[in-house]
Amino acid sequence: MGYRVAVVGATGLVGQRLLQVLEERRFPVDELRPLATSRSAGRRVRFAGSSWAVGEASVAALAGVDIAFFAASGEVSRQLAPEAARAGTVVIDKSNAFRMDPAVPLVVPEVNGHALAHHRNLIASPNCSTIQLVVALKPILDRFGLERVVVATYQAVSGTGAAALDELEAEVRAGVEGRAHPPQVYPKPIAFNVLPHCDRFEAEGFTLEEWKLVRETRKILERDDLPVTATAVRVPVRVGHSEAVWIQTRDEATVEELRRVLAAAPGVVVEDDPQAGVYPTPLAVAGRDEVFVGRIRRDPTTPRAFWLWIVADNLRKGAATNAVQIAEALVGAKARAR
Amino acid sequence: MGYRVAVVGATGLVGQRLLQVLEERRFPVDELRPLATSRSAGRRVRFAGSSWAVGEASVAALAGVDIAFFAASGEVSRQLAPEAARAGTVVIDKSNAFRMDPAVPLVVPEVNGHALAHHRNLIASPNCSTIQLVVALKPILDRFGLERVVVATYQAVSGTGAAALDELEAEVRAGVEGRAHPPQVYPKPIAFNVLPHCDRFEAEGFTLEEWKLVRETRKILERDDLPVTATAVRVPVRVGHSEAVWIQTRDEATVEELRRVLAAAPGVVVEDDPQAGVYPTPLAVAGRDEVFVGRIRRDPTTPRAFWLWIVADNLRKGAATNAVQIAEALVGAKARAR
Repeated sequence: MGYRVAVVGATGLVGQRLLQVLEERRFPVDELRPLATSRSAGRRVRFAGSSWAVGEASVAALAGVDIAFFAASGEVSRQLAPEAARAGTVVIDKSNAFRMDPAVPLVVPEVNGHALAHHRNLIASPNCSTIQLVVALKPILDRFGLERVVVATYQAVSGTGAAALDELEAEVRAGVEGRAHPPQVYPKPIAFNVLPHCDRFEAEGFTLEEWKLVRETRKILERDDLPVTATAVRVPVRVGHSEAVWIQTRDEATVEELRRVLAAAPGVVVEDDPQAGVYPTPLAVAGRDEVFVGRIRRDPTTPRAFWLWIVADNLRKGAATNAVQIAEALVGAKARAR
Repeated sequence: MGYRVAVVGATGLVGQRLLQVLEERRFPVDELRPLATSRSAGRRVRFAGSSWAVGEASVAALAGVDIAFFAASGEVSRQLAPEAARAGTVVIDKSNAFRMDPAVPLVVPEVNGHALAHHRNLIASPNCSTIQLVVALKPILDRFGLERVVVATYQAVSGTGAAALDELEAEVRAGVEGRAHPPQVYPKPIAFNVLPHCDRFEAEGFTLEEWKLVRETRKILERDDLPVTATAVRVPVRVGHSEAVWIQTRDEATVEELRRVLAAAPGVVVEDDPQAGVYPTPLAVAGRDEVFVGRIRRDPTTPRAFWLWIVADNLRKGAATNAVQIAEALVGAKARAR
């Protein structure tokens, strides 16, 4: 028995990856409804060896759907997701619309899959930069405790969407050909540059991206008081977010213990032999589903302080793969309950 | 009255910038000796509207020189600088060879110009990523004290040299044209990638670049016990190093006070109105001599904790300009002593 599955935002970068990941992981799809806003409806997408027409997203188009992945804007999610959920569709929402709603579980299955037990047909998947952070922090929190987390990100332009990827390519090409290409998606050029500006600026001088990292990490780790702080920076990388993370643990730990705990954690791959050139980079992890951790080392200036270098494919584990894993957890739970 | 000036490494990226900055700042050059290793000797460089033949660097070639800027390798500095200094030439050395020698002042003129008082004809200019950090930290240290500094860098490829810049261009061009271009300067591709690997890996899992940031910052700020720690990352930017810096001050401070103290500090430009799109980026500060600070904000999770975003041209303030400023300070002191 399979499921009637909708993908809202099927023509976007995350939507396309969702279709790909559903296929790769052989998610039991009986019926597929690729949907998008009116701007993109009518286009076609590939799934399971066929070409599918993209319908216009609406409450009617979602009628009878078992599982709907939302990978469109927060506005689209706010308009359609609650009604679809009331009508019985399980919505897995990648947008920022409901993540901090106390009634909505915010889930990374390896980290807090138990939070799925009490959903009301609406489940949020976290921000890309949060997902890879909590996957690496959770095993450390469980074993050694955490007192402080300081994050600097190196985020790929695909996190902004297809238009941003096009802008990077156009700027790079213009640069190679000696032409200028005025930026449109970002406020300043992103090629050969870095921008300490992900998402919009909000209160107290932080960006929304930085607040997401703080709030979502606390919610997922169930540590409302955890001191987490971040600077989020866009870099001219196509796919793959990286994070330089400085932590203080509550209990004493050795680097070897941290490596062991991380290597044993679900969804984590430790790549940490720098003398042999082994550490993760975004270019190398693009297309992979795990979270890669390297450069694990003790900061000798501070008790129980360590650095981690955390890299993941922002479109896969940071978005599509995590959403599909949420669906797998739900379907698995249902299968077990039968 | 001018000076007989030598530039060792005159054909390199920093050497070329040195000639440019000497000219721009009208440093009193009576006689110029552009020098390089045998590999580059014989080439020509531009200075003050003329073309100059590059001689081979040697003790003999430095005879009678008043001020020699060394912008070659640490090996060249170790071979030639001590003997030139003994012979009466004031050596301003950009290499890593003597920076941590207790007998050698390590100087950023705005920060610790007083250390020049006791030089023995050999003065070291710090690592590029250190210079911009201490220029921004010093006014904060003086006014509020500092208890902790955590740095993540975003470093331009020009910091590695001309061959690295060529490699970035070649990789980008190959990418645009759909070809592969195997890396030779860096161990992995740098185009569309970030590498948590600046300089070689050393003890305890840190790179030499990271240790330089720690040790040199402590020496320049004269705070051997200051907890400074860093992750240094190469990004596909041509010129301009950026740093996301999390600090804890000793005394209470407000964001407004930090902005005022930084704005009043020598060599610092505060660009900090993010809602209006005002924050520094490497592309925008390339070619400038100051250190630019933006995104100054309080970390609400920790008492007396703040974030800074520090950007500077690594070839100018990070290298050539700082060396010329050291020479200006020496010459000014001599002029005042007359």
